[in-house]
Amino acid sequence: MLTALQRREPLVQCLTNAVVTNFTANVLLALGASAAMADLPLEAGPFAGVASGVLVNLGTPHADHRDAMREAVAAAKAAGTPWVLDPVAIGLLPVRTALAAELLLQRPTIIRGNPSEIICLAGVGMGGRGVDSVDSPDDALAAGRLLAAEFGSIVAISGPVDIVTDGVTDVRVHTGTPLLTKVTGGGCALGAVIAAFSALSDDRLANTVAACSVYTIAAEQAAADAAGPGSFAVAFLDRLAGLSAETVLKLAVIR
Amino acid sequence: MLTALQRREPLVQCLTNAVVTNFTANVLLALGASAAMADLPLEAGPFAGVASGVLVNLGTPHADHRDAMREAVAAAKAAGTPWVLDPVAIGLLPVRTALAAELLLQRPTIIRGNPSEIICLAGVGMGGRGVDSVDSPDDALAAGRLLAAEFGSIVAISGPVDIVTDGVTDVRVHTGTPLLTKVTGGGCALGAVIAAFSALSDDRLANTVAACSVYTIAAEQAAADAAGPGSFAVAFLDRLAGLSAETVLKLAVIR
Amino acid sequence: MLTALQRREPLVQCLTNAVVTNFTANVLLALGASAAMADLPLEAGPFAGVASGVLVNLGTPHADHRDAMREAVAAAKAAGTPWVLDPVAIGLLPVRTALAAELLLQRPTIIRGNPSEIICLAGVGMGGRGVDSVDSPDDALAAGRLLAAEFGSIVAISGPVDIVTDGVTDVRVHTGTPLLTKVTGGGCALGAVIAAFSALSDDRLANTVAACSVYTIAAEQAAADAAGPGSFAVAFLDRLAGLSAETVLKLAVIR
Repeated sequence: MLTALQRREPLVQCLTNAVVTNFTANVLLALGASAAMADLPLEAGPFAGVASGVLVNLGTPHADHRDAMREAVAAAKAAGTPWVLDPVAIGLLPVRTALAAELLLQRPTIIRGNPSEIICLAGVGMGGRGVDSVDSPDDALAAGRLLAAEFGSIVAISGPVDIVTDGVTDVRVHTGTPLLTKVTGGGCALGAVIAAFSALSDDRLANTVAACSVYTIAAEQAAADAAGPGSFAVAFLDRLAGLSAETVLKLAVIR
Repeated sequence: MLTALQRREPLVQCLTNAVVTNFTANVLLALGASAAMADLPLEAGPFAGVASGVLVNLGTPHADHRDAMREAVAAAKAAGTPWVLDPVAIGLLPVRTALAAELLLQRPTIIRGNPSEIICLAGVGMGGRGVDSVDSPDDALAAGRLLAAEFGSIVAISGPVDIVTDGVTDVRVHTGTPLLTKVTGGGCALGAVIAAFSALSDDRLANTVAACSVYTIAAEQAAADAAGPGSFAVAFLDRLAGLSAETVLKLAVIR
Repeated sequence: MLTALQRREPLVQCLTNAVVTNFTANVLLALGASAAMADLPLEAGPFAGVASGVLVNLGTPHADHRDAMREAVAAAKAAGTPWVLDPVAIGLLPVRTALAAELLLQRPTIIRGNPSEIICLAGVGMGGRGVDSVDSPDDALAAGRLLAAEFGSIVAISGPVDIVTDGVTDVRVHTGTPLLTKVTGGGCALGAVIAAFSALSDDRLANTVAACSVYTIAAEQAAADAAGPGSFAVAFLDRLAGLSAETVLKLAVIR
């Protein structure tokens, strides 16, 4: 799948938050995808019709962005474009929590979040501490299966071990590094990478697992090169750009 | 205080400008704090009620952000949460200049700015050249003391030597590097670090001096590693993440 | 011209997109210019009156930004401040396409774009694939000359070889690296650098060629240091900060 991605250069439309937009675009470019941040009302819809995949990340959802997100989701659905919902920091914060509930009814192709976000989105818990989770992926597994079953989504729960579920089959991705939590956008950019992989095959579970695996393998390699979070972020982009299918097959730990 | 910060992981809410939001979040994460950029109307208030400290930075204050800032400041005051005002580039620019004057009346816990901003905020001068100061910290000391006395704020004036004053006692922090002026957000991120330290003790002057000292020591270390502003910014994050209380005590030059 | 820029520290006002604003400011600071992102209605105009040069980049033109752009352009024209139009991703996307057509009538001092954008702006083609060009600079040369002749603008067409034209004389800048396309803002930040050089002499063609040459020489040097796009971006800032007129004269390939 990595080889297919590098060959096809999927065009990923990101409606994402102001904090991570630069890092997210650089992650997509390093991976070999094309990134476009078309997040305006009247533009988000037309773009979603031509994009390979769409990311809707609720990190800083100002009014204009909310309208653009609704437009992009409607257009993605109409065009059959896969789209990813990342319900950042829902729970305490009312605007994004309501928007996440609304977009969930549109049946996202994939949902990516940290455990507390997944638990909150499923309606069985309160959310985390700001953007940080207070739960583990295993705590959120039942909630993730529930969301997958009810909304037909693939659910990717990020943590020390990522869990990806379609409601029936649970896949665990064991690669990664805690340094991803020390760089802002470490989770958000994974949502964009999942959107990039989402167009590669009809097996949505496999697409999502491949994305998580590629992402965390590059991160693990970068952590080995790094003296701290600054050099980690730099090495991560270098490693994503240099990653080959052979390396992924050698280093992947997927169960 | 650095040890206390690393143990408590204060949750810092940043209402800051679009240019530096990524760097600011990464500085906070590297330091060991938690960063959340909750800057929406209807969300900024609830978040300020749970945050450890709040930064209000006027670098790109669009209408929505201005409403969110007012909301966050009111909620921070109601909850007793310390908050930092950074009056970026006031003087020539009317929207932020009026907003800074309005927020000043809310008696910020701490005010951080470059010398020209402090002079302008105190009403005794015209502001700088864009985001750059045309005055030295000593030029701004009288203005800083005036603000501290009138509004009960700690005032931190950034420059080659930072001066922190409560209106009575002036503390000078002699560490630092000119490379901080060659990376965008070098001053803005200090405002966020001050917000992170602001919750650590009841001695607001000491909290602010500690923040300035830790920040500029890590910067000084990074400058020694750097080949230019690009590698400096990377090394700065690494050094912040690796900094220990022992190193701070050894390298601090505070008078 | 590089020496003149380093001595004068031109103040560059950037009305640019949310994705690249941090990188753009860091490029300007590394180069020795001063960067200010004054992009609010009611502030963009006053600032354009004192700026050395203004960049108007249409990458994420939300409503407030559009108003600020109109204001900045009017004020720049009134003050005789040179300004650069970068019509990012026009074609498919209606809001920016209409805005680009409107601003073009204001006769930009310089227009910078990728080949597909220049072709689309001249009204002789459809635009590219998202932010990527599907045409080569030579494909866009006739369109560039047309724009230059009709609107009195210098037109800079970015690609493997940059072409700068005033409608009569075409100058080719042969330095550069494909890594500039693997870092988001690789093109957008060039627009800001052109704005920085635009105030240095009355020869607008020479100013623009100097900007493209300095930018791509630093990029070429950085590519030689880099292990991938992450370390390239870091090295690029270091190289811009370390670049001397002597090195530019030695490495420039301008025809």
